[in-house]
Amino acid sequence: MRLQDLKWTEVEALSKDTPIVAPIAAVEQHGHHLPVFTDSMLLGEVARRAEEAMGGRVAWAPLLWLGNSHHHMDFPGTISAEPRAYLDVLNGLIDNFIAHGFRRIVFLNGHGGNIVPSSQAVFEARQRYRDRKDLLLLSATYWATGPQPPDLGPDFVQDHMEHACEWETSMILRLAPHLVGPIESLEAVPGGSAFAPASHGWTTKDRSEPGHIGDPGRATAEKGERLFRHFTGEVVAFLEKVVAWDGRSWNGGLA
Amino acid sequence: MRLQDLKWTEVEALSKDTPIVAPIAAVEQHGHHLPVFTDSMLLGEVARRAEEAMGGRVAWAPLLWLGNSHHHMDFPGTISAEPRAYLDVLNGLIDNFIAHGFRRIVFLNGHGGNIVPSSQAVFEARQRYRDRKDLLLLSATYWATGPQPPDLGPDFVQDHMEHACEWETSMILRLAPHLVGPIESLEAVPGGSAFAPASHGWTTKDRSEPGHIGDPGRATAEKGERLFRHFTGEVVAFLEKVVAWDGRSWNGGLA
Amino acid sequence: MRLQDLKWTEVEALSKDTPIVAPIAAVEQHGHHLPVFTDSMLLGEVARRAEEAMGGRVAWAPLLWLGNSHHHMDFPGTISAEPRAYLDVLNGLIDNFIAHGFRRIVFLNGHGGNIVPSSQAVFEARQRYRDRKDLLLLSATYWATGPQPPDLGPDFVQDHMEHACEWETSMILRLAPHLVGPIESLEAVPGGSAFAPASHGWTTKDRSEPGHIGDPGRATAEKGERLFRHFTGEVVAFLEKVVAWDGRSWNGGLA
Amino acid sequence: MRLQDLKWTEVEALSKDTPIVAPIAAVEQHGHHLPVFTDSMLLGEVARRAEEAMGGRVAWAPLLWLGNSHHHMDFPGTISAEPRAYLDVLNGLIDNFIAHGFRRIVFLNGHGGNIVPSSQAVFEARQRYRDRKDLLLLSATYWATGPQPPDLGPDFVQDHMEHACEWETSMILRLAPHLVGPIESLEAVPGGSAFAPASHGWTTKDRSEPGHIGDPGRATAEKGERLFRHFTGEVVAFLEKVVAWDGRSWNGGLA
Amino acid sequence: MRLQDLKWTEVEALSKDTPIVAPIAAVEQHGHHLPVFTDSMLLGEVARRAEEAMGGRVAWAPLLWLGNSHHHMDFPGTISAEPRAYLDVLNGLIDNFIAHGFRRIVFLNGHGGNIVPSSQAVFEARQRYRDRKDLLLLSATYWATGPQPPDLGPDFVQDHMEHACEWETSMILRLAPHLVGPIESLEAVPGGSAFAPASHGWTTKDRSEPGHIGDPGRATAEKGERLFRHFTGEVVAFLEKVVAWDGRSWNGGLA
Amino acid sequence: MRLQDLKWTEVEALSKDTPIVAPIAAVEQHGHHLPVFTDSMLLGEVARRAEEAMGGRVAWAPLLWLGNSHHHMDFPGTISAEPRAYLDVLNGLIDNFIAHGFRRIVFLNGHGGNIVPSSQAVFEARQRYRDRKDLLLLSATYWATGPQPPDLGPDFVQDHMEHACEWETSMILRLAPHLVGPIESLEAVPGGSAFAPASHGWTTKDRSEPGHIGDPGRATAEKGERLFRHFTGEVVAFLEKVVAWDGRSWNGGLA
Repeated sequence: MRLQDLKWTEVEALSKDTPIVAPIAAVEQHGHHLPVFTDSMLLGEVARRAEEAMGGRVAWAPLLWLGNSHHHMDFPGTISAEPRAYLDVLNGLIDNFIAHGFRRIVFLNGHGGNIVPSSQAVFEARQRYRDRKDLLLLSATYWATGPQPPDLGPDFVQDHMEHACEWETSMILRLAPHLVGPIESLEAVPGGSAFAPASHGWTTKDRSEPGHIGDPGRATAEKGERLFRHFTGEVVAFLEKVVAWDGRSWNGGLA
Repeated sequence: MRLQDLKWTEVEALSKDTPIVAPIAAVEQHGHHLPVFTDSMLLGEVARRAEEAMGGRVAWAPLLWLGNSHHHMDFPGTISAEPRAYLDVLNGLIDNFIAHGFRRIVFLNGHGGNIVPSSQAVFEARQRYRDRKDLLLLSATYWATGPQPPDLGPDFVQDHMEHACEWETSMILRLAPHLVGPIESLEAVPGGSAFAPASHGWTTKDRSEPGHIGDPGRATAEKGERLFRHFTGEVVAFLEKVVAWDGRSWNGGLA
Repeated sequence: MRLQDLKWTEVEALSKDTPIVAPIAAVEQHGHHLPVFTDSMLLGEVARRAEEAMGGRVAWAPLLWLGNSHHHMDFPGTISAEPRAYLDVLNGLIDNFIAHGFRRIVFLNGHGGNIVPSSQAVFEARQRYRDRKDLLLLSATYWATGPQPPDLGPDFVQDHMEHACEWETSMILRLAPHLVGPIESLEAVPGGSAFAPASHGWTTKDRSEPGHIGDPGRATAEKGERLFRHFTGEVVAFLEKVVAWDGRSWNGGLA
Repeated sequence: MRLQDLKWTEVEALSKDTPIVAPIAAVEQHGHHLPVFTDSMLLGEVARRAEEAMGGRVAWAPLLWLGNSHHHMDFPGTISAEPRAYLDVLNGLIDNFIAHGFRRIVFLNGHGGNIVPSSQAVFEARQRYRDRKDLLLLSATYWATGPQPPDLGPDFVQDHMEHACEWETSMILRLAPHLVGPIESLEAVPGGSAFAPASHGWTTKDRSEPGHIGDPGRATAEKGERLFRHFTGEVVAFLEKVVAWDGRSWNGGLA
Repeated sequence: MRLQDLKWTEVEALSKDTPIVAPIAAVEQHGHHLPVFTDSMLLGEVARRAEEAMGGRVAWAPLLWLGNSHHHMDFPGTISAEPRAYLDVLNGLIDNFIAHGFRRIVFLNGHGGNIVPSSQAVFEARQRYRDRKDLLLLSATYWATGPQPPDLGPDFVQDHMEHACEWETSMILRLAPHLVGPIESLEAVPGGSAFAPASHGWTTKDRSEPGHIGDPGRATAEKGERLFRHFTGEVVAFLEKVVAWDGRSWNGGLA
Repeated sequence: MRLQDLKWTEVEALSKDTPIVAPIAAVEQHGHHLPVFTDSMLLGEVARRAEEAMGGRVAWAPLLWLGNSHHHMDFPGTISAEPRAYLDVLNGLIDNFIAHGFRRIVFLNGHGGNIVPSSQAVFEARQRYRDRKDLLLLSATYWATGPQPPDLGPDFVQDHMEHACEWETSMILRLAPHLVGPIESLEAVPGGSAFAPASHGWTTKDRSEPGHIGDPGRATAEKGERLFRHFTGEVVAFLEKVVAWDGRSWNGGLA
């Protein structure tokens, strides 16, 4: 169920136990071969499929494409909120939904740079409403809602998400092949930090001249469809747990 | 030309005199009969038509549906940024485009509640870059880019935009009639403030129990099409002036 | 009635329906011929006359000369609050008066650069006290409280307010001719933006080297007196509506 | 020399070694007998006399009556900036004058509640411009610019400034006796904190029901004139040192 | 090498390639049996041992005990910075060290609640200095600097860190047994969220009445010594990589 | 009694009339001869002695070494919070203790640069909790809690505290002589401002090249012991007044 299609009287009539899912993504450089709207397109497609699967049991806010992408600002076309403004925006969204009486609020994230700020926002909001024991405030990233790593098949060269990589390129090839530039000549750019698992402050220029990280040359539309199915399944399974929550327990108390 | 479809290398290759148009709208209650996404749908359609008309001469950012709608917060389904967070977001967008080298930046607005904050943001940004004489920072509202009031035809009962009114309802009837509830029983709610032209702080509950202001019962899809054509024409004419700007003069210096 | 002359016990004894009028102006360059205190002097005179006319029915805060004038900061002598600090100051004034129990709070503005921020502040404050239905929060500019344009007589070359122009120069000639420099040699500087009615971010240097906009060479003290009488009349008529407000209705409900 | 009377071209022509004095005061309750504008009136008179004495060697900004008075907010009529907004305003004033090229900037303060925030603002500003060795940023309170305590005569019962007290009441009796209520019946309210010299957070209600602190019953207009002369002399002597500063030395380097 | 013991001239003389390690911890409830300073004590001991091991090759800032612990605020004795103030403090520390010329700055963290904000701060700082390619900004948590999970021995019931748990209790038993209350009667409290790996906003009261999470009843001082040795070894190995960094490469470029 | 050694249940069991003392100091340059941790070491020692003297009647928070030292930032090794972040941190500490039910909260300060911001924080907090009449919020500096100046003996050349001076150097000589560099060659640097008692914005470079102010060459460990005894006695006497406070009176109402 899409919130944006409802009248206010219909929103008022919803059970306040209905989870609100707010998809949050980004507009930022995705290498020489993918459009800047990539993250928003991918999350949009996962959300579209999951919305269809779950029907009226979950209410979806419109996708917020403005994300936390200052690490990509050296590349034209990146549109990014200031880090603190982004925290304010996410906190404000939670405030909105709580003001309207909802109790289960989920950021469904589609951009690596949003992981930390959405966690920070969920923390801040939970403390702001610390006397409320009936709130479920979550932030989940669509490629990381289930056990890791996914078993995607032997033809994949990556076993985790990177940036403008085999995975993302495959999904855009599935979704909008006319927007994909030539990928044959793209060299793989290794991911990871020598200091992992420490959090390492970076800008993309530290890591990749063309802008991609991973191996986009191995992408195919067929892999993209497999990825969409996999992630949609994971997201739906995750949201089923949100629906089934008993309204009080940290550990789920799933019926 | 839609920025979101471009790769960063394509954005880099654009002339930096290309106007960037950032459509800004809202998600907020629109009475008993219209969906909360109304403002975003209407501006999206005007932008879609204008984008088509202007081709590669203007670059369009994706539409930002998160607006300044706290005056509607008593009605469930409204999603609104905190007033100061909204100012930060708009300032940040201008910063982004200037960082990428662009000089003509236009907020194309589709929500009454955004008029003052987008003017404030344009002011703040202009002062922040006060030594730049080559910047054109504008905020324009799609129903108010040309001379007022428009000559729309004798069958219109309103001669200016209100909220969830004859005009907006007509355009949604044109665009998505399946999302429009019954309008026959809706009474006209008068607009205006007894203290006009003073700026009058209000919440919607001060003015309208159902949420609409104006006379939605007079709406038709055909009026909607006329409005879309009128506003698209006005917006295109306005953007032509932005394109034609000589790069320096306050008064246009149009070639 | 001037708040500043009262003891706290006298303020406590006032009816809380008494409108509080807070005059807000500016200190900023006014061309080669007028003092930087021009806006504050002019609003001060209008306020003085209106205060005299309305007696004990309205309480006047002292005039706040610190305004939003960063667009004039290239000219020495301009004293201007940071844009956000100015919003905070105006919000704080509203908070003060509400804390003391008052319900009708009016910014009476005398500076173009304050129009947007005072509207923003009134909006923000109204949302902050959104559960209060008995509040009347207004921001009005002294030359724009009534129908526009005024009918001032055929000898006027301007039909609206500009900056350090025929109108302002005339009024300072009436009020403090010893502070006015030679005006004969001043050329008219055209106002307006080629992109009107869009909001256009500007600094004064974009528009005028000497600092004035409009035609100060046509000013006379006699015109100034006519302007003072006209504006005082308009302000008094506006404040009479504030006094007559029924305490609840958006549309006035004037008795 | 009053800045407010100058044209911007005259401000531009000033030597940038001219000290800028910004008088900062307050609007706040002053007991049952004095008007809320007391601090602004008193500082205004001291400033007027000192301005007259020093002529063109010092430039005076207009008096900022909005101060830091939240400790008096329980008493109607108090108008006070939020503490952080006040810090922003004072920092902004310093920024203004530095932007216009001035190097010697003095807050001349007339309100106890401004002492700490003006010191904080001066500190913050000095750090913000830490590479400037030619700046002299000062905050001084008119009753504490010279050696303490003053030798005022044997008929004084107070030997230091309190609030709405012998000293302040005497000066208002000198300046505007028609605004002074009956003082015979006012009991002395002792000042000081049992925890002095520690900084003790307080609201006026902690200390005085009527609002005054000290012994206003002993006030006379004649004492007021003596106080004005004394404080004006002290302020002038202090400003002479500012004028005589060698432009570099912490310890004065007075010629 | 401890920064705190150095004179400023000694800090100036240090190679600016010397890593600065800033230990950040917390003061917060640690169940019925451990003191509120637990996190600070444990990190302090790990830092003490690592400092000893690495000698003059690393400079250690004093431990900042004030952390991000609002989720524990229902329990008296917790001392916690406001979430945004904590971000400001961490950003400020990075600014300090960069101002003094250092290029390798590491937060060594000892508190779960600091993981997200220190990552956010490192991100924000990296963007603020985005033109600097010679900076290495890291945030690492002492129990998670190496491969996970550690192989600690068969007598451990936990294989990861929890709160006031087997691991923390063991280390405090090793360090300060006189501060440990009775642990026999403490029941194990399960960790984890039913919605993992999603980020789940929580307060401790959501999860544990006594305040601990995990199984403190299994703690021994001997286990504590093993943990200290293990974590010290991991931290030293991590800091060796920081020392060996080639000054440019994201992937280490370790010599 | 040290808060850090307590379990949360023990903090909960404390009388909420127990004064909480939060020692606040700094890490900043202290000339060529003293370590940057000087202020924190000295306050730590005074606090240690006073804690011992007062036993369970006062609860001591851990010492916060991060202070307001931007005026020393030209000297490497200084670690300083941004001025506003420091205000936030201090306000947050007060909020913490009030949230836990305590009513008597004292900043015991050991750094000149903290005097103004801790006063500002105490003011801000008192206003934030303005309806609480049972709060005692104080900020006191250890060398200025009693009557001034102290009578320390004829061999002292200074009669008040300066920076890295006779007094501070003596106390570090008493506490950690191995951290003191040669002092024989240090010239006395005069203190004071030519504009005293005005608040004078400064950076240390304005006043002293080596970083000290005062006459460190006259320091001895024996003087240091005398100073510690004197200041401890003063602090204890001050805290006895806090303990003895009647819970309501500004003027103490000491039993």
